[in-house]
Amino acid sequence: MGGKAILMICDGLGDRQFKGRTPLQRARRPNMNMLASKGITGLMDTISPGVTPGSDTAHLALFSYDPHTCYQGRGVYEALGAGLELEEGDVAFRCNFATVDSRMVVRDRRAGRITGVGEVLAKELNGQKVDSCGIVFKATTEHRGVLVLRGEGLSRNVSDVDPHEANMPVLKSKPLDGTMESKRTAFILNRFTEMSHEILAEHPINVEREKKGKPPANIVLSRGAGAYARLDTLEERYGIKSACVAGGALYKGVARAVRMDVIDVEGATATANTNLVAKASAVKKALEDHDVVFLHIKATDNFSHDGDINGKVKMIERIDKILPLLMKTGAYIILSGDHSTPCTTKNHSADPLPIVIYGEGVRVDDVKRFDEISCMKGGLGHIRGLDVMPIMLSLIGKTKIFGS
Amino acid sequence: MGGKAILMICDGLGDRQFKGRTPLQRARRPNMNMLASKGITGLMDTISPGVTPGSDTAHLALFSYDPHTCYQGRGVYEALGAGLELEEGDVAFRCNFATVDSRMVVRDRRAGRITGVGEVLAKELNGQKVDSCGIVFKATTEHRGVLVLRGEGLSRNVSDVDPHEANMPVLKSKPLDGTMESKRTAFILNRFTEMSHEILAEHPINVEREKKGKPPANIVLSRGAGAYARLDTLEERYGIKSACVAGGALYKGVARAVRMDVIDVEGATATANTNLVAKASAVKKALEDHDVVFLHIKATDNFSHDGDINGKVKMIERIDKILPLLMKTGAYIILSGDHSTPCTTKNHSADPLPIVIYGEGVRVDDVKRFDEISCMKGGLGHIRGLDVMPIMLSLIGKTKIFGS
Repeated sequence: MGGKAILMICDGLGDRQFKGRTPLQRARRPNMNMLASKGITGLMDTISPGVTPGSDTAHLALFSYDPHTCYQGRGVYEALGAGLELEEGDVAFRCNFATVDSRMVVRDRRAGRITGVGEVLAKELNGQKVDSCGIVFKATTEHRGVLVLRGEGLSRNVSDVDPHEANMPVLKSKPLDGTMESKRTAFILNRFTEMSHEILAEHPINVEREKKGKPPANIVLSRGAGAYARLDTLEERYGIKSACVAGGALYKGVARAVRMDVIDVEGATATANTNLVAKASAVKKALEDHDVVFLHIKATDNFSHDGDINGKVKMIERIDKILPLLMKTGAYIILSGDHSTPCTTKNHSADPLPIVIYGEGVRVDDVKRFDEISCMKGGLGHIRGLDVMPIMLSLIGKTKIFGS
Repeated sequence: MGGKAILMICDGLGDRQFKGRTPLQRARRPNMNMLASKGITGLMDTISPGVTPGSDTAHLALFSYDPHTCYQGRGVYEALGAGLELEEGDVAFRCNFATVDSRMVVRDRRAGRITGVGEVLAKELNGQKVDSCGIVFKATTEHRGVLVLRGEGLSRNVSDVDPHEANMPVLKSKPLDGTMESKRTAFILNRFTEMSHEILAEHPINVEREKKGKPPANIVLSRGAGAYARLDTLEERYGIKSACVAGGALYKGVARAVRMDVIDVEGATATANTNLVAKASAVKKALEDHDVVFLHIKATDNFSHDGDINGKVKMIERIDKILPLLMKTGAYIILSGDHSTPCTTKNHSADPLPIVIYGEGVRVDDVKRFDEISCMKGGLGHIRGLDVMPIMLSLIGKTKIFGS
């Protein structure tokens, strides 16, 4: 016992059979199959059988935090992932810069996928006040940003102002329960949304864009309210030091919620062009002073949502190629996904995921391939997302005996 | 995603090996085996490993209602299954018309399996009052009926007056806890039992029966107290429309408790002579305007309780023959049982049940046969009754993502 561990999660990895085979089964994956041959395999329901996980609840569960009690709403993880420090009671949202017409109908939810100006526009909004509530606004990538409402008496039980599709009017946020807090939060969010339009519509950047016939970034549309509450950290829970290597803000955000050290990697883009070798190197380096490193690879999910089976197969093959780098570290490797996203349905599904655990002393079952069907017969049987961290930490000697 | 589903439950289907093979293994079951070959299989503990389910708790679990918190006592489901509307706080019992002698010793628990007169006798009892508590009494099949006590301050924690065997005295119902409600309910039940004897002993039907040397239906024996409390409905829980096709009152009753539409089918008898083709046709029709149809077949359990292995095998073979009718609907088919009833023990057992899920997109495992032993190796692994509805509804796109 003793050692270190890599928790490697390929987003949306699980799939269904199309013409008899899943993308994993189609992929040339000699290294994944070696892990299966020399390790123990099984299937994992990230939440529980039949429950379709979101990316946020899935990662909470994988980190050992029961999402039924710990989930705080997507906005929290987006804001943390954007690098904001949150305070107890903050209510956070994911946002888009968008284009509305004079009747407040959304013409482009992404303002022409505007790039390079978010930070400048954000300066006009950040630090404002609405009804004594503080406004923290940060632009992130392209048209994206995060909004944090900071003050007393706020609630996450409010509906989105983002209509989620174009040619629909901007919605009025509504309280989703009868509390004063929810009413007040909806009021503030609506006022902020109007204010963002008043401020941004006049901004020279947008005046210029309109002249050039480009959609102006003339409003902020918010969605996915979350209320921050401090969770006990992984270090408090298990006495371990942990790190996160991920490209996507959401995954960094969930990692920050449990106080993993988030390591920014040049070229980690959360898309198919991500630099997997750079990420693997970052994992190797992080293992020097962390017990557990969480490695997240997003693009498998992107291909799934596009229904691109070949793209997913090729991405799996690229991921397979970095496994030797990880195996050389001598750390335990736990490889799985956060949820299934069948290319056939293009949406998250409740199908369980294959999982393999590789490392010193692991009981080796007779499964030789890493895929959804082969791992049905694995020695782990069917486990749940909440089981992953305890199993992993017990292997590296970081859990205590229960009783004596 | 999208579609409809049939939840097909053969009562007491699971069994043990007798001379090496279970009844399922002995049966010619080409269609069940085809479902297994083209679907995903596993074993199901309806409640949890080692817990022997009742028929009522088993069906609650299969419908996704945790019986540890939702179970209200058998009488409730019998009363609902008899078509009574219950009110919050009603206490309901299953009843038999029985024969007692002058010393209140039970001579025949079923009054010679009296038929055709229950309704007439029930009229004398229904609508009475005991200590300001309303009496609702309804005769059902043969010697059977249901009793509902309606009023303030009642409890289900009272013991039966039915001694459950002949040549024993009628029991006094006793409160099973120290509450006033239980004391009052036991008092009312005892008074109702005496009253039923006073009224029925004099009834011309019974006078006539005694003249002919037949056992008179001269008392009502009650058992299985249940207290009605409204459950959230399947529609509230999942936004689905569901229907029940069953012969037995109990199964209709559990279905009504969760507000399935109960479809009465001519020839559905809950015995071996049931019209399976009529039931399959009713399922097909119900699928037109329901998302989920629950199909219950009782007789497998009847043969099990009789220890009749050959009868159970033949019943399984009859059930197998209607599967093509169900497959033609294009709906997902989930086939299992509610509990095991080994012909060797003639009683419910805690042995898990084989389960198969067949339909579009289901991951196909390599199990080719539908039986207790083959399904041990199925890709579903071991699931629980509470998992069945979420898995089924996630396949037909009727569940929401948890998180985002």
